[in-house]
Amino acid sequence: MTTRATAAVPPGAAAPATDTAAPGPAATGRDAILLAARRAFTQRPYAEVTIRGIAADAGVSASLVVKHFGRKEQLFNTVADFGPAAEELLGAPLHGLGRHMVLTLVRRRREQKGDPLLRVVFSLGNHDERSLLRDRFHEQVTARLTERLPGRERALRAELIAGHLIGLGATLSLHREGAGSRATPEHLADLYAPALQSLVEG
Amino acid sequence: MTTRATAAVPPGAAAPATDTAAPGPAATGRDAILLAARRAFTQRPYAEVTIRGIAADAGVSASLVVKHFGRKEQLFNTVADFGPAAEELLGAPLHGLGRHMVLTLVRRRREQKGDPLLRVVFSLGNHDERSLLRDRFHEQVTARLTERLPGRERALRAELIAGHLIGLGATLSLHREGAGSRATPEHLADLYAPALQSLVEG
Repeated sequence: MTTRATAAVPPGAAAPATDTAAPGPAATGRDAILLAARRAFTQRPYAEVTIRGIAADAGVSASLVVKHFGRKEQLFNTVADFGPAAEELLGAPLHGLGRHMVLTLVRRRREQKGDPLLRVVFSLGNHDERSLLRDRFHEQVTARLTERLPGRERALRAELIAGHLIGLGATLSLHREGAGSRATPEHLADLYAPALQSLVEG
Repeated sequence: MTTRATAAVPPGAAAPATDTAAPGPAATGRDAILLAARRAFTQRPYAEVTIRGIAADAGVSASLVVKHFGRKEQLFNTVADFGPAAEELLGAPLHGLGRHMVLTLVRRRREQKGDPLLRVVFSLGNHDERSLLRDRFHEQVTARLTERLPGRERALRAELIAGHLIGLGATLSLHREGAGSRATPEHLADLYAPALQSLVEG
């Protein structure tokens, strides 16, 4: 179920902090709820987020939100879950991991599944509440990546690899009609993956 | 004057979309205005931003805002100006540009001058209005970088270099107490700059 958490977010959107645009024609009630929930949890302190508010934003009833996702804590866990993305990104042998990560990220964006990591940047505020999303990222992405790496300074290298990946998503979103949007995933990997691979190998 | 635009933003904050925390003790009226303005222009469509609202958020009078920064358009130009940051980042010969960019970004963050580029990620929404910040980034960062690069596929390489730089700022902010925060700028450059240098040289 958690893999659906990013399904409704187009590559360029990635839970914009104040996106009030209606979901596209492809968005179902479930997708609309996820979009509204992501917006709410990145915009406001956790304590201030309500199921009722998310439901109103999604144009559905509060009971439908609960039916699909459970109460607030469960909904947050779904929205904040980087687990499936991390599993997908890390699903390759070390010797090809850099390239695999770039290809996975770019292909997932191209398939309109949304950027697997980029939404975490909207948590870069000062509120303690919003750091829940960061904590989840640390546990599910950085820590798992650290565990996979051989050699020295694994935590530092994992942080820098995460930076490369977030940056790739950010620049593809920033230059939505730029040169990167016209390049094949393979070509992007040729140019971008060596940096990651070098940090993977340490 | 425009160099002051990022002075009030701590490294980890970078214009958080809903940061309502008061500016730190070091913030002057001018800094508070810039912080409020950055918040406003990344949160709301341009047309909805008012000098009065920014003044209220900064705890000063509207006339003080105008006295310091002029009317709304001038204030936006100040807040959205990546020019000085780009000049600083690009101020090195090509053969050492990758390392220079990483060192400049990290040192600037460490000196509490704020991240030179990261605030652009808050513009990744769907509103046309918010793309003004993206447009500025394209002109002032990506296009200038493209002009500096030798060789083929300069625009694509410039976009990817921008991605590496945004990603570095993002991961340092995300892992505020992580391994990256304890590494020296030189060590971060050792690990992170080769990727940029390789894209610089093409």
